[in-house]
Amino acid sequence: MEQKVCLIGKGTVGSSLLKLLIEKRKEIKDKFGIAYKFVAIFEFDGALIDEEGLDIEQIDQMGVNFRNSKSWKLGIKILDHITQLDLDIIVETTPTNPETGEPALSTIVGALSNNINVVASNKGPFYLQYQKIKDLAQENGCQVRYEGTVASCVPILSMREALVGNTITGIRAILNGTCNYILSRMSAEGVQFDVALKEAQELGYAEADPTLDIEGYDAAGKLVILANELLGWSKTIKDVQIKGITNITAHSIDLAKTEGYVIKHLAITENDKLVVEPRLVEINNPLNISGTLNVIELQTKHAGPIILMGRGAGGFEAASAVLNDMINISLNY
Amino acid sequence: MEQKVCLIGKGTVGSSLLKLLIEKRKEIKDKFGIAYKFVAIFEFDGALIDEEGLDIEQIDQMGVNFRNSKSWKLGIKILDHITQLDLDIIVETTPTNPETGEPALSTIVGALSNNINVVASNKGPFYLQYQKIKDLAQENGCQVRYEGTVASCVPILSMREALVGNTITGIRAILNGTCNYILSRMSAEGVQFDVALKEAQELGYAEADPTLDIEGYDAAGKLVILANELLGWSKTIKDVQIKGITNITAHSIDLAKTEGYVIKHLAITENDKLVVEPRLVEINNPLNISGTLNVIELQTKHAGPIILMGRGAGGFEAASAVLNDMINISLNY
Repeated sequence: MEQKVCLIGKGTVGSSLLKLLIEKRKEIKDKFGIAYKFVAIFEFDGALIDEEGLDIEQIDQMGVNFRNSKSWKLGIKILDHITQLDLDIIVETTPTNPETGEPALSTIVGALSNNINVVASNKGPFYLQYQKIKDLAQENGCQVRYEGTVASCVPILSMREALVGNTITGIRAILNGTCNYILSRMSAEGVQFDVALKEAQELGYAEADPTLDIEGYDAAGKLVILANELLGWSKTIKDVQIKGITNITAHSIDLAKTEGYVIKHLAITENDKLVVEPRLVEINNPLNISGTLNVIELQTKHAGPIILMGRGAGGFEAASAVLNDMINISLNY
Repeated sequence: MEQKVCLIGKGTVGSSLLKLLIEKRKEIKDKFGIAYKFVAIFEFDGALIDEEGLDIEQIDQMGVNFRNSKSWKLGIKILDHITQLDLDIIVETTPTNPETGEPALSTIVGALSNNINVVASNKGPFYLQYQKIKDLAQENGCQVRYEGTVASCVPILSMREALVGNTITGIRAILNGTCNYILSRMSAEGVQFDVALKEAQELGYAEADPTLDIEGYDAAGKLVILANELLGWSKTIKDVQIKGITNITAHSIDLAKTEGYVIKHLAITENDKLVVEPRLVEINNPLNISGTLNVIELQTKHAGPIILMGRGAGGFEAASAVLNDMINISLNY
C-alpha cells in the first residue's frame, strides 16, 4: 500500500521524522506492507513539491539548506494545493501558537474537510478546538491522531484503547520537563528559582522566553488533551486553573523536605476540574521523578493507579510518536 | 453484535470477571455494540451450561455455591463440548501449572484448532509453548490475547502496537510482587529474609508454598512472554537464567544502601539472553519501587526508556485485562 504524505514544518520534529523514516522504511514495508511517499514538505515561506515523490535522503542531507533543492517553490501555501496533491496523510509539526493555534489549526481543518487524515505533534489546535477537530474528523470519516502532543514518545493517548476494559477516573501528571528540571535542581542543590532557570536555559531545557513553560500554560494544554481523550471530557485551555512555579522558593522546598515531601508542578483532574499548580508529593511517590522526564498517573476504577513515564521532549522522541500514528492510520485505512 | 463466551475457571479472576461484566455490560453495549453471552462456565469437576445464556447475576450471587445451580452438570469437560457450544471466545483463567501448562494448554490448543478466539490470564501455556500457540492461531485465523498474564492490569503487551513507530531494544522489569514486597521490607526494616517472607504470607502477598515466587520462576515466565511479544523472540522458560532471592541477607541490603543502591529482583534481557536475578539498582532509579507493584522499563532505540508501572496482581486487576482483551477481540472480529 502506498500512502501519499505531506509534511508541514521542517523543524526539529519534521527533520527527525525524515531521518527516522529513512532508517525504518524497509522495516515498515516488510512488516506492514506500507510505503510512505512524501509528495510535499511545506515551510512558512514555500514548499518542496514533487508529485512523483521527493527524494527524502537528498533533502535530509541538505539539512537547513533544503531551499536550494530544485523541488523548492517559493511562496506557495498548503491550503492552495491541498486538493491537487491527492494526499492520504498530512503530518503537522509546526511550532505551537498558544493563542490562535495557527497556522496548524487551519491546516488541520482544511485537511479533514478534504477527507485527508491528519497526524499532528502541534498541540495548540487540540487544546483550543478539540471538539471541533474531532467532530470534523467524524463527519468526514477521517482519522486524526496526535500522540506526540502529550509527553512526546510516551504512548499515553493509546491508553484509551489499551484500558477499555477498565475505567479511567482521574489523572495526576508532570507534563512539563522544564518546570520539573528547575524544581529538581532547586531541591537537589538548594539554589533559588532564577539560578535554576538560568541553568536550564544554558542546557537547552528552557527557551529564551520560558513564560509558557514556567507559568504552566504548556502543561495546561497537555492536560486538556489528556482529559478530553482519556476521560471523554470536552474542555479547552480556558477551563484550566493555572499557577506557575515562579513563586517557589528554595526555603519552601526545604520546608517540604523536612516533612518528607517534594514540591512538584502537577497537572491534575479534581472532580470535574482541571488544575495545574505546585503541589506537595511524598518523597517515595512514583510522581517524584527528577530531571526532564514526564510522568502520568491514571487513576482507574478497577485496578488502582497505572503509571507511565518517559522523555517528554526531543526531536526523535516526537518523531517516533508521529510515525506510530502514521502507521496506525495506514493500518486502519 | 452478540458474542458467545465460555469461561474456564471460576476462581478469583473468573469470579471478578463476572462481577466486572455485570457492572460494565450496559456501557459495553452502548459504546461498542457488543453483548457477551456466557453459555458455559467450566470448573475442574463440571460446568454450568445453558446455550440460551447463563444468568450471571444469579451465578455471581451464589458465590462458591454455584454448583447448586440447576445449570450445573457434574463431570463434563470442555474439550468434549467445544464444538457443539458454537463459541466466539474461550476465556482461560485456571491456575498456572508451571511444568505442563495443563489443563489450560490443551484447552487453548483445542479452542484455536476449532477456530475459537482465546483470552487467557494463565501464563503457563505461553511461557512453555508460545510459538506453537501463535502459529496455531495464525493457521486458523484466530485471535489469542493474554494481556493479563504479565503485570496484570498494566497494558504492557499493548506496547507492541503502541510503539510501532519506535524500536524496543531491551527490557528491565520487576514482575513479581511477592519478591519485591519481601526485599522492600528487608530494606525498610532491616529484617532478615524469613521474617519478611512470613509477614508477606500473613498479609496474603505470598502463597503457603512460595517457591515459584521466591525462586524466580514466576518472574521468568513473565519475562519470556514479554520478550517474545515485544522483541519478537521465540524463547521458553528453559532459556532463562534464574536466581531467586533466598540468599539475600539484611547485611547485603545494608551494604548496598551505604553506596546509594537497593537490591531488586530484576527480570531483564541482556543481548540475546533472558536473566532473572537480584541486581543493584540506584536508589533514585524508577525501578526502585516498593511494595507489591510491578514495573517494566522498555529500552527504545529512538526515545530512551519508556516505563510502565501498576499493580501486578489481584482479581479485578486481572479481570480488567481480560475484559480488555475480550473487547479488542470483538472489535477486530
